[in-house]
Amino acid sequence: MEFDTIVAISTPIGEGAIGIIRMSGPESFQILDRVFKKIGNGTFEDKQMVYGQIMDEDTIVDEVLAVKMYKPRTYTKEDVVEINCHGGLVPMRSILSLLLDKGARLAEKGEFTKRAFLNGRIDLAQAESVMDLIGSKTKRGYDLAMNQLEGHLSRRVRGMRDGLMTLMGHIEVGIDYPEEDIEDVTYPEIVDQLEDLEKQIDKLLKSANNGKIIREGLKTVIVGKPNVGKSSLMNALLKDSRAIVTDVPGTTRDVIEEYMNVGGIPIKLIDTAGIRSTEDVVEKIGVEKSKSYFNEADLIIFVLNASEPLTDEDLDIMEHVKNKHAIVIINKTDLEIRIDESLINMHLNDKLILKTSMEKEIGIDLVEKAISDILLDHDLEINQNETVSNTRHIHLLKTAHQNVKDALGAANSKMPYDFIEVDIQNAIVNLGQITGESVENDLLDHIFSNFCIGK
Amino acid sequence: MEFDTIVAISTPIGEGAIGIIRMSGPESFQILDRVFKKIGNGTFEDKQMVYGQIMDEDTIVDEVLAVKMYKPRTYTKEDVVEINCHGGLVPMRSILSLLLDKGARLAEKGEFTKRAFLNGRIDLAQAESVMDLIGSKTKRGYDLAMNQLEGHLSRRVRGMRDGLMTLMGHIEVGIDYPEEDIEDVTYPEIVDQLEDLEKQIDKLLKSANNGKIIREGLKTVIVGKPNVGKSSLMNALLKDSRAIVTDVPGTTRDVIEEYMNVGGIPIKLIDTAGIRSTEDVVEKIGVEKSKSYFNEADLIIFVLNASEPLTDEDLDIMEHVKNKHAIVIINKTDLEIRIDESLINMHLNDKLILKTSMEKEIGIDLVEKAISDILLDHDLEINQNETVSNTRHIHLLKTAHQNVKDALGAANSKMPYDFIEVDIQNAIVNLGQITGESVENDLLDHIFSNFCIGK
Repeated sequence: MEFDTIVAISTPIGEGAIGIIRMSGPESFQILDRVFKKIGNGTFEDKQMVYGQIMDEDTIVDEVLAVKMYKPRTYTKEDVVEINCHGGLVPMRSILSLLLDKGARLAEKGEFTKRAFLNGRIDLAQAESVMDLIGSKTKRGYDLAMNQLEGHLSRRVRGMRDGLMTLMGHIEVGIDYPEEDIEDVTYPEIVDQLEDLEKQIDKLLKSANNGKIIREGLKTVIVGKPNVGKSSLMNALLKDSRAIVTDVPGTTRDVIEEYMNVGGIPIKLIDTAGIRSTEDVVEKIGVEKSKSYFNEADLIIFVLNASEPLTDEDLDIMEHVKNKHAIVIINKTDLEIRIDESLINMHLNDKLILKTSMEKEIGIDLVEKAISDILLDHDLEINQNETVSNTRHIHLLKTAHQNVKDALGAANSKMPYDFIEVDIQNAIVNLGQITGESVENDLLDHIFSNFCIGK
Repeated sequence: MEFDTIVAISTPIGEGAIGIIRMSGPESFQILDRVFKKIGNGTFEDKQMVYGQIMDEDTIVDEVLAVKMYKPRTYTKEDVVEINCHGGLVPMRSILSLLLDKGARLAEKGEFTKRAFLNGRIDLAQAESVMDLIGSKTKRGYDLAMNQLEGHLSRRVRGMRDGLMTLMGHIEVGIDYPEEDIEDVTYPEIVDQLEDLEKQIDKLLKSANNGKIIREGLKTVIVGKPNVGKSSLMNALLKDSRAIVTDVPGTTRDVIEEYMNVGGIPIKLIDTAGIRSTEDVVEKIGVEKSKSYFNEADLIIFVLNASEPLTDEDLDIMEHVKNKHAIVIINKTDLEIRIDESLINMHLNDKLILKTSMEKEIGIDLVEKAISDILLDHDLEINQNETVSNTRHIHLLKTAHQNVKDALGAANSKMPYDFIEVDIQNAIVNLGQITGESVENDLLDHIFSNFCIGK
């Protein structure tokens, strides 16, 4: 396939020492030549960095190192240009806009990786792992993504799909030439093979829950009235753990999200204290606004103030917490206790209730232990080579699993071959959507729209 | 000079398509060789990108493109390695920590550029311009920095310094061999030359005010009670302008700073609504906390609520605004007017008072015009080749200017040559500190500590 020439800033947005502008497509080299003035005696051999200046007519835009990468041994399998420039917003945007003027088109999100897929360098599951690699919050999540990029998941899925196609071929023969003397597949044989495939898919699906947690982490929401110590708790947890992300791109200013790392699993902490308008004079408790966070949370940490009697607000939150996976923290125990603990025990009798004083740094270790116990419950010691973590893949595997079970039911009931075939065909299509053998354009657009610009 | 081997992440921190790890120093190549496994047939010619994997023993850390740049034609004039890896936090940090294990040292802020200076590739003024390039907020600020990197300022300063040294030489001859028949410099000649140099420095200094504004922008603080529309104003201004920075690294969460671009000049908007603790139940007006912002501001935008009578808080802010460069905005004019305008006119009679309704989108254009009028007052149409913008340089130029004026005074009074010499010598030293000909280690540390990591 031949596409147009795309360009984007490929380094994270912000101020850094070096920025990279990347182009891919048939005109990449010509477009570079239109703006690049070589300094010294470098030559554009494949993947050779050449020192020079990006020129807008007679004006120096930046001093850069430029490199031409010749197809097909490139990220996209197309001619690729990378320009290493000064890592500020102005130089990067100036060069970008110049290249757009000279004939390149601004790349859509994930479009470089999409081309790598469309040009057959990687399959769809591998392409999806690229974004997981970049977005991974811990080493374990990263290793999982790297395994997927290396093709472990793809090989598993393709193996199962091949098995189904071979079976299908055998059945076809029975359908097309029922009268001929070709050795038929018998129903017991079909059942045998389907049972084996069902088990394989099932095994992979069993790893999904853990894979998802390793990839996305546990979403933990800290709730409570204002001034009970939510932010202090968050800071204490982040200080003790090795906080690995302090700013989450794309989140609004009003929601404070941070990650802590417990045994390689990212715990996404959301402080609902941030959920409010900055111009509000009257402090709203934010229960309403927090509701959607409640519903998405894997774990809720509900913080109470030991030095005050329970208020209607506390009771209101309690109602919402009741049926959730939650830990209750009674904070400020260094002050005179005025809270009615029996009432808490009555309402939240199935929850773990911990007493802390953020002020005196008491009990933070208990909170940490409670979180890591919850993780241990999940038994995350899994073989990462055999793990599926992507929600889309999990959904497709589940559907394919059902297809195979349906086929199995039909085979067991000795239904006509055509019936079995329909289910197997569906399973083949669904598995093929994981690696991209069978995939619609709309779906591709959707998948790559979750990528970052420049990848 | 020979240094140890340093390493750092050189792309902005965040999630992006590509990240770069940079190493510089005598061991760079060996350290890379310890962790790099080539794939395919690339060879490490100078500046040749080679595809391969970063390996931690038997584990693949990442798939990368690595490049060796051979001294002395590199950024630091040392052997330099760059590793282009996946642009996520985990891959970048994993590679970084592996290289540290294998013998590199984590680079200090600006240490790569410091080496470029210490190894004589660029002078100090050029080195300083590198950070201005990266940090520039508009194209004009960027062009100014690029001019400085190209050496325009350095040549000017060096020219003046050379002039002083030549003059010094002539005077020396008169001192050392007063009785000999060598042609003396006469006082009128000394005065002539010093007057010429005084004018040159003066001209450069005259450009300083504009240079500083182009480089750093106008610091504009939006003040007012809660709920008067400060954030709405900020958002309206940012929406209409092309906001170029949405997150300022290093600022705390509590202060909201954004840049708008007016005619190529960055206007730094600071919303004091953000200056408060998130857990405060009782909303404090923040005047106390805002005071330091008041004092540093080039412009204050004071927002009032037209639909409420003036409160003590308003009057309190008024007192602080009185002697500042300020614009007064009476917002919410779509509601019933209850504010006492005569009182405002009385207290702030020398200020521009504008009426707006952020809700109805009325008057935002007036605010924008007021800001750009203030910029026009500065007459920023200057010759960028002859502009000094860095506070340190301005200070040194001012001191050198005074030295030359002192020398001139001494020459006019026909004081002994030694007296004139002392002043000229001081001027030479001060000018030399701009380009780094005469500079202390402490000063270097201070200058480069303002750089970002990896540059």
